[in-house]
Amino acid sequence: MRAYKGIRSLVKEIEATKRQGKTIGFVPTMGCLHDGHLSLIRKARRDADCVVVSIFVNPAQFGPNEDLKKYPRDIKRDLGLLRASGVDIVFAPGIKSLYPDKFSTYVDVGDLTSGLCGASRPGHFRGVATIVVKLFNIIKPGIAYFGQKDAQQAILIKKMVHDLNMDVKIKIMPIIREKDGLAMSSRNKYLSSQERKKALSLNRSLESAKDLYKKGERDSYKIIKKMQGMIPQNNGTKIDYIDVVDIEDLKSVKRISGKTLVALAVKVGKTRLIDNTILGG
Amino acid sequence: MRAYKGIRSLVKEIEATKRQGKTIGFVPTMGCLHDGHLSLIRKARRDADCVVVSIFVNPAQFGPNEDLKKYPRDIKRDLGLLRASGVDIVFAPGIKSLYPDKFSTYVDVGDLTSGLCGASRPGHFRGVATIVVKLFNIIKPGIAYFGQKDAQQAILIKKMVHDLNMDVKIKIMPIIREKDGLAMSSRNKYLSSQERKKALSLNRSLESAKDLYKKGERDSYKIIKKMQGMIPQNNGTKIDYIDVVDIEDLKSVKRISGKTLVALAVKVGKTRLIDNTILGG
Repeated sequence: MRAYKGIRSLVKEIEATKRQGKTIGFVPTMGCLHDGHLSLIRKARRDADCVVVSIFVNPAQFGPNEDLKKYPRDIKRDLGLLRASGVDIVFAPGIKSLYPDKFSTYVDVGDLTSGLCGASRPGHFRGVATIVVKLFNIIKPGIAYFGQKDAQQAILIKKMVHDLNMDVKIKIMPIIREKDGLAMSSRNKYLSSQERKKALSLNRSLESAKDLYKKGERDSYKIIKKMQGMIPQNNGTKIDYIDVVDIEDLKSVKRISGKTLVALAVKVGKTRLIDNTILGG
Repeated sequence: MRAYKGIRSLVKEIEATKRQGKTIGFVPTMGCLHDGHLSLIRKARRDADCVVVSIFVNPAQFGPNEDLKKYPRDIKRDLGLLRASGVDIVFAPGIKSLYPDKFSTYVDVGDLTSGLCGASRPGHFRGVATIVVKLFNIIKPGIAYFGQKDAQQAILIKKMVHDLNMDVKIKIMPIIREKDGLAMSSRNKYLSSQERKKALSLNRSLESAKDLYKKGERDSYKIIKKMQGMIPQNNGTKIDYIDVVDIEDLKSVKRISGKTLVALAVKVGKTRLIDNTILGG
């Protein structure tokens, strides 16, 4: 495994890899790796000749009052996990490499970024889209892997790749959960044991949404109502949103017919958690 | 020469070209070709194994009250000129190929787009940046060629390529002029013979700016003042802007020290003309 901090030396290796006709599978991460990331890497390992993983806590996707500074970082542990996973190339640049002084170009995916997490995190998805374009241009993967946990991110990256005619296949992999159902996230580290228990309500409410759907319920309002009742809204736990939306345009639907995303964000103490499931289709 | 309307068949040929290890030189155009375009193509022909030219009147870079509909088109004549110039591949897509329904992703280069032409053409450079990213992603050129006549466009494309880590070299080629000094432009076709005469004042004012600079004048205000006096502001001729700006950040400078762009836009009748020159550096 070779680790690169600078773009130039990485690009040389990427070019050599391409010249050999090898396919590149790419997993972009913000580090602090968990089994969710590793599931993407295992998939890339099966698909591609050369697996590239990036570790970069992207400042452009954090709002001014968000957790950029305290976002968990553990590069030593990450490198160990990546080595054990058979990764070929790690790209872990400094901020100035990707955002030099006078950086001013951003990619905006439009409507898809305004609802769900975009509503409470203005600019977040512009930052995501921009860094993904940059990383794709540097690493030139044939396939890139994203987790279904960040559903809105996954959908808008697919849209962006399509709109901008980018030559990369996007694979979205299932949410990986702890044994008790909590969706894996680097931010779970923030939770106290008390908060950790409350956090289980996200997945439980999604399970009940699935149950209702299986029993024939198609009214989004009723499903949301049921889910709201399952999230303890006290002692600093607060629903940011629960929404039932079309899987492609992310617009709220009143009745579920096609493939539909049920997504929610809940602030548990100071930690904002997200989770989702797909119904129908 | 092979001409493509669809993206898929073009991409297949591009991939085959790449596999053969051939370098691709790309000249994006809006058609209605003149010697300015042909000078770019000749340069590409000297530099690259495979020369690709696109012809696409990009709706995203026209404002609602601009000349999208009446922009001159003459694809038959264009194809003849391209064939005679030894072009290998022409890409002339329909609008829906590049902007399918629900298209929503745009690239914005920020500060560079607000002054000069950006001030009177809001959204124009967002449209330019977006189509250039799309075309680069489809055609994957090693080098792409732009004319110095669209100075702001040339500078922001270089900035965008740098910011987004795009793997393409940008070459900016000199302005090509008619014998009487008028900068070549597809929009010159709009001019009546009366307007054609007035249009000469753009280049003449730039020539006098160069003269002043050679004589030691470094005060932007005095240069602009002199230029203003040379543009006949009557009978429907109107200066949009005359500005003296830093060549990199496009911000106005009071005194000329480093490499400096003198640029102007003048509306002659209904036709908006632009021209520029570089001083110092």
